Amino acid sequence: MDFEFYNPTHLIFGAGKLAQLGDVAGKHGKKALIVTGGGSVKRSGIFDKAVASLNAAGVAYAECEGVEPNPRITTVRRGAQIARDEGSDVIIALGGGSTMDAAKVIAAAVLYDGDPWDLIGHGQENWVIPNQALPIITVPTLAATGSEMNCGAVISNDETKVKSFVQTECLFPKVALVDPELTLSVPKDQTAYGVCDIITHVTEGYFNGVDGTPIQDRFAEGVILNTIAWGQKAVADGSDLEARAQVQWASIVALNGFVQAGVEMLPPVHMIEHALSAHHDITHGAGLAVVNPAWMRFAAKARPAKFVQFAERIFGLRAKNSNDLDCALKGIERFEDFLKSIGCPTRLSELGIDDALFSQYADDAVLVLHDEDGNLLGRPPMSKEDIVGVLRSAL
Amino acid sequence: MDFEFYNPTHLIFGAGKLAQLGDVAGKHGKKALIVTGGGSVKRSGIFDKAVASLNAAGVAYAECEGVEPNPRITTVRRGAQIARDEGSDVIIALGGGSTMDAAKVIAAAVLYDGDPWDLIGHGQENWVIPNQALPIITVPTLAATGSEMNCGAVISNDETKVKSFVQTECLFPKVALVDPELTLSVPKDQTAYGVCDIITHVTEGYFNGVDGTPIQDRFAEGVILNTIAWGQKAVADGSDLEARAQVQWASIVALNGFVQAGVEMLPPVHMIEHALSAHHDITHGAGLAVVNPAWMRFAAKARPAKFVQFAERIFGLRAKNSNDLDCALKGIERFEDFLKSIGCPTRLSELGIDDALFSQYADDAVLVLHDEDGNLLGRPPMSKEDIVGVLRSAL
Repeated sequence: MDFEFYNPTHLIFGAGKLAQLGDVAGKHGKKALIVTGGGSVKRSGIFDKAVASLNAAGVAYAECEGVEPNPRITTVRRGAQIARDEGSDVIIALGGGSTMDAAKVIAAAVLYDGDPWDLIGHGQENWVIPNQALPIITVPTLAATGSEMNCGAVISNDETKVKSFVQTECLFPKVALVDPELTLSVPKDQTAYGVCDIITHVTEGYFNGVDGTPIQDRFAEGVILNTIAWGQKAVADGSDLEARAQVQWASIVALNGFVQAGVEMLPPVHMIEHALSAHHDITHGAGLAVVNPAWMRFAAKARPAKFVQFAERIFGLRAKNSNDLDCALKGIERFEDFLKSIGCPTRLSELGIDDALFSQYADDAVLVLHDEDGNLLGRPPMSKEDIVGVLRSAL
Repeated sequence: MDFEFYNPTHLIFGAGKLAQLGDVAGKHGKKALIVTGGGSVKRSGIFDKAVASLNAAGVAYAECEGVEPNPRITTVRRGAQIARDEGSDVIIALGGGSTMDAAKVIAAAVLYDGDPWDLIGHGQENWVIPNQALPIITVPTLAATGSEMNCGAVISNDETKVKSFVQTECLFPKVALVDPELTLSVPKDQTAYGVCDIITHVTEGYFNGVDGTPIQDRFAEGVILNTIAWGQKAVADGSDLEARAQVQWASIVALNGFVQAGVEMLPPVHMIEHALSAHHDITHGAGLAVVNPAWMRFAAKARPAKFVQFAERIFGLRAKNSNDLDCALKGIERFEDFLKSIGCPTRLSELGIDDALFSQYADDAVLVLHDEDGNLLGRPPMSKEDIVGVLRSAL
């Protein structure tokens, strides 16, 4: 194990914490830009509560509404302009993963003179990785991406149909204000996609990490076991606050670095899914539900031992030996069954995607994280043919 | 779950990382105070390597040698004076838990005009909790206390025989430079005591936390399972670098807040052990090996379910029901057997401690963390009679 861990985000977690937003924001600025998504926070009254808290603390605010489910660079440009025009000195993300990601890049774009797309890695020669950003406060309204307590952001370019990412220190939120009550009104399908997103963050590191990380394996299994158990409850009864809280805590630890420390995670499943959702406006978690089991069946053949461990420790199966591929595949089947049981799609056809652009998706998937031979980084690495093969198996 | 998590320490982990000390220190200061213990870092050559790295980076240094196994406030006073006289602007702790704890309080004491004992909570009316400290870099040479990546410190007063603590934000190390190679020369007994210390940090939160933390339970169990497995290997063969690395990583996560987030941990076992080691110069981990199983047998009667879970998930036992006290006690016995197997004492007599001062230990144990009735905080709370009873059971 040879690694660094650094996560300076101050996490404040608990039901009702939204009421602290004004005090928290007031420590970092006087005029906030509130970034929101498609309007659900206004319909649900969450926005009004946030504003009431800011008002009580004497923090002024401007708004950037309308961040898309796959947040676009055009929205980042617009948000940065609003922040400049309004003199915003702190950025508040009030929404799901896409809203938080857009808000992070807006916070950096405000302090960058060029085009914000320069800040997103998309295979360009000179990736301008940002080194400064306005203070960011995340207030998630969905348990899924874990963006609230990490320094990553995924942004789509609506013109070039490329969806890619940036991950760097200045994008760590100063504060993640996480109030599980805000997720009580999330509909069943989005809850299920969030559950899939959480588990996929963990399985990426678990299956695409280096060997010899037994403590991290147990951490990952703990998150998966609980996300399955509490995710089922949250999907079955959206008003179950305990289930909502456990799923939300799972979403945070799934991608704030705790579970992946030392693992050297590679995210091939995400890279493939990003290629899909860049071309089709599908929810990230729904795309992952299709790609992840298909990828697992591909990867299990190359590296069965970890999949056997998964089958045994997550689903209680018993393997004949540590490389028992049958057992590994049974574990994957059980995982896929779980995804179906909470209402996730597991075939591309359910997402309305056919094989017309398979070659394009494969090209896009390897754009940033590839080896010298152009293979997608992962364990094992994937040729473009491998990627097409995985997608074909999920038709 | 209602909690905050904040840990801004930058962890750099891996074999050979000591060579980066100069570069790391140079980012935080120009003249270091190196704090060390009884001399083992000099005999082993670790000190020379540290100094070579500082020299190469142009960082000057002064020394504060001789921190005791239970670090004394007199040593803190001496270290702070050296730092002032030498104009130190960064504090490097090169040693075990006691060295790191002393270094932390020295870093705060340098910037405090009064007596450093004011900074340690010991039941006084005006506890001056420090709010500033020189930058601290921890370089642990022992896997045990986890002090390298948290903001706590335990200090003893040699005059009043009180051992107590301080825990506050400014004591977070800027960097924890953790090089498992530095622990290769730790003798068998100290390795075993470290293993016990690590597990006890986790069991304190596990058994003395609130209910309803299923993810944290799995994290805790993962640390315990691996500390048992890799701890046995590290004790059996001190030159096993992989075992040393896993145990050291376990020591970090056992007390950096990951495992305890949301748990509202109370540390009665530590409070009782501190009372013992304030009066007897025993190694903290050895004291814990005696107190922890005795405390567990007391606590299991009040709160059997968690001990049943421990017996099942750590030792693979099968309970008749979730409150099966027999199963709980068998799990504790297995845990005690493990401690014996690696050479830890499990009776007070092995530490040379008799019942002469039991009442005094009980008074000392409740000094800081007590409820309105004077009971030691824990789940369940403990009267002084309960504490004496636990100690008597461990004679």
